[in-house]
Amino acid sequence: MPVLRNISQLATCPVQTPQDDAGLISNAALVWAGESIQWVGPYQDMPDQYHSEKVIDCEQKLVIPGLVDCHTHLCFGGWRGDEFELRLQGASYQEIAAAGGGIASTVAATRGASLGELQRKAQHALDGMLSLGVTTVECKSGYGLDEANELKQLEVYRRLDEANAIDLVPTLLGAHIIPPEHKANRDRYVEMLCEVLIPQVARHKLVRFCDAFVEEGAFTVAEARKILSTAKDHGLGIKIHADQLSDGGGAALAAELGAISAEHLEYISDAGIEALAIAGTVAVSLPLASLFLGEPFLRARKLLDSGVAVAVASDFNPGSAPSYHLPLAMTLACLKQGMSPQESLNAATTVAARAISAHERIGSLMPGYQADLAIIDSPTLNHWLYHFQANGCKAVMKRGEWV
Amino acid sequence: MPVLRNISQLATCPVQTPQDDAGLISNAALVWAGESIQWVGPYQDMPDQYHSEKVIDCEQKLVIPGLVDCHTHLCFGGWRGDEFELRLQGASYQEIAAAGGGIASTVAATRGASLGELQRKAQHALDGMLSLGVTTVECKSGYGLDEANELKQLEVYRRLDEANAIDLVPTLLGAHIIPPEHKANRDRYVEMLCEVLIPQVARHKLVRFCDAFVEEGAFTVAEARKILSTAKDHGLGIKIHADQLSDGGGAALAAELGAISAEHLEYISDAGIEALAIAGTVAVSLPLASLFLGEPFLRARKLLDSGVAVAVASDFNPGSAPSYHLPLAMTLACLKQGMSPQESLNAATTVAARAISAHERIGSLMPGYQADLAIIDSPTLNHWLYHFQANGCKAVMKRGEWV
Repeated sequence: MPVLRNISQLATCPVQTPQDDAGLISNAALVWAGESIQWVGPYQDMPDQYHSEKVIDCEQKLVIPGLVDCHTHLCFGGWRGDEFELRLQGASYQEIAAAGGGIASTVAATRGASLGELQRKAQHALDGMLSLGVTTVECKSGYGLDEANELKQLEVYRRLDEANAIDLVPTLLGAHIIPPEHKANRDRYVEMLCEVLIPQVARHKLVRFCDAFVEEGAFTVAEARKILSTAKDHGLGIKIHADQLSDGGGAALAAELGAISAEHLEYISDAGIEALAIAGTVAVSLPLASLFLGEPFLRARKLLDSGVAVAVASDFNPGSAPSYHLPLAMTLACLKQGMSPQESLNAATTVAARAISAHERIGSLMPGYQADLAIIDSPTLNHWLYHFQANGCKAVMKRGEWV
Repeated sequence: MPVLRNISQLATCPVQTPQDDAGLISNAALVWAGESIQWVGPYQDMPDQYHSEKVIDCEQKLVIPGLVDCHTHLCFGGWRGDEFELRLQGASYQEIAAAGGGIASTVAATRGASLGELQRKAQHALDGMLSLGVTTVECKSGYGLDEANELKQLEVYRRLDEANAIDLVPTLLGAHIIPPEHKANRDRYVEMLCEVLIPQVARHKLVRFCDAFVEEGAFTVAEARKILSTAKDHGLGIKIHADQLSDGGGAALAAELGAISAEHLEYISDAGIEALAIAGTVAVSLPLASLFLGEPFLRARKLLDSGVAVAVASDFNPGSAPSYHLPLAMTLACLKQGMSPQESLNAATTVAARAISAHERIGSLMPGYQADLAIIDSPTLNHWLYHFQANGCKAVMKRGEWV
């Protein structure tokens, strides 16, 4: 069993302690065997039996659980760099969407791209994510918006999951926007989702979760309730894009349906926060989207103080968050969302794992957990999140193997 | 003469055009010889004489002038990661300084560090900067605050300049704060600067510029006037840290003294903007400091529209801007300072070069200019600044050599 030692600081990120405790250990060691962690603790407490094992010197660096990016739109055709310039000139996200840009333009580009093209492009992003220390990625469909193209995106995810060390956790986001061809007949699209797509992806186990975007310009609460209830009946976990651009009642719906997570929440009301706390729904904050859209940042302090667990994810997509730099999102969570470095690290590890129902297997560095970890070129967590580097990650382990 | 071709987009960043014109050329080529650029333009216009030369294929990437980071505090002892956590808990920058933290703690660490230690540490940052496409770095003293230690910092810069392809442009910032041992006798410190340090660094040509921090807790306008006038009399160019935390009249002083640049300016008044416009002083914006301190961002749109040239720099230092990621600062300049991608690129190339009086030699890709450039893994400038990557820079040329 190999041993990592001379670790300046190790964050165990224990599951379900208060979020402000990342389980920091100074001068730590970690022992793993095969895919699993065997022992973690201060080096001087390491049992004798491990002292003869193969030793890897971490040279006084920081060790953290492999990061979990629990909200991405990884697979898409095209980019929207020109829209960026329009938005800088003052056009709102919704104005651009109304003019045929926004999500609809990515839908057209995604439909027009071959499976191979989409796979190569997403692979490039996935390589970048892994190099930053990300070992698990939730990834949504939602740029196909018809049966064939939603399945095409999910097939890209299946292939990428098979081909990469990094784990992909696919989510059906057929309810991203109403596709252009159904604008005049919204019900027909909702019907297709409920009667064709959801049963099919559930039957073939193509996804674990179903998500819906509840917002003006996307889906109403009533439509989302119908879609997500159907998904629940088919055994899928529920996620909701809620209260991103206005308080649209998405958080309340998430609580009502027992959603595993409610995401965005920049405009969540106090009643919405209360509802999430009671339901035990994880709030997924997406600070890069706030930064790029110039929208408010999540009131994470208020949510945490109300007992809601808050995850941080990249939201990587070509419109509102065209970056997969999860460590930047974590630094922004500190600077702009009132979170401490320990809260921010838990947010991108164990809490993010909870947002994809994987917190008993990944997101923590505890015995029995999967040996997914990153070595960071910083002496401490504080230093890492404060000294923002292009990429502080020096090595990544997935399931006990260096990748 | 070698040729760069198959350039998807090249930004010439011509000197002193309107700042919103970065001189973008599609399908470009660039020819250089020795240290200098010979020809730049659309590939189809390239004169026949260059067609037989050695060709380097840029594979449809973006080519920009080597970035100029015109405001850094590159050499310092220690870090202040723990202060980061205190600030997140609500302590202000000035409160931390008053409690003995802040700049004073970096002064203690810098005084306590050997020349070799400081050089190794700054070298590490310099390597990171170069990898991001930065080819020229202004670097301030100001953590020594006595004769021996200010000279120690400047000696670090001299050695680094000699040892690295990247050019260092040192600035004396003896007037950073009043050193702790002179708190009771400020005049004596100002006197030492004017009568000992400034004459000495000017005589030995250790710096090209002299800077002063005009702010409550740092130097008064009257003190800065005295220090900077002395520097001017000794032939040094003038820079001012002005209006960072309050409107302290620093911009007006910059205009009065004909400073080459006024830096920070987060709280600049409309009258201050007017004064800079008339004086032709460059405003150096430091968006990473605004981000890390939670202070307002520079009203760059207002300055640009008033005819002030606005540079963007990293402000790299261990307190208020603990990152040297200049491309992140450029993206923030777009998102938070109302600047267009072209204005932002000019801000970190030709305008930044103007802020160190080097705009006739670097910062533009025009015939006769030094061949300093970066190849960026993006098809266009818009795409680069929008798709924020850990590091989009794929290759760097300094004085005609790949580095």
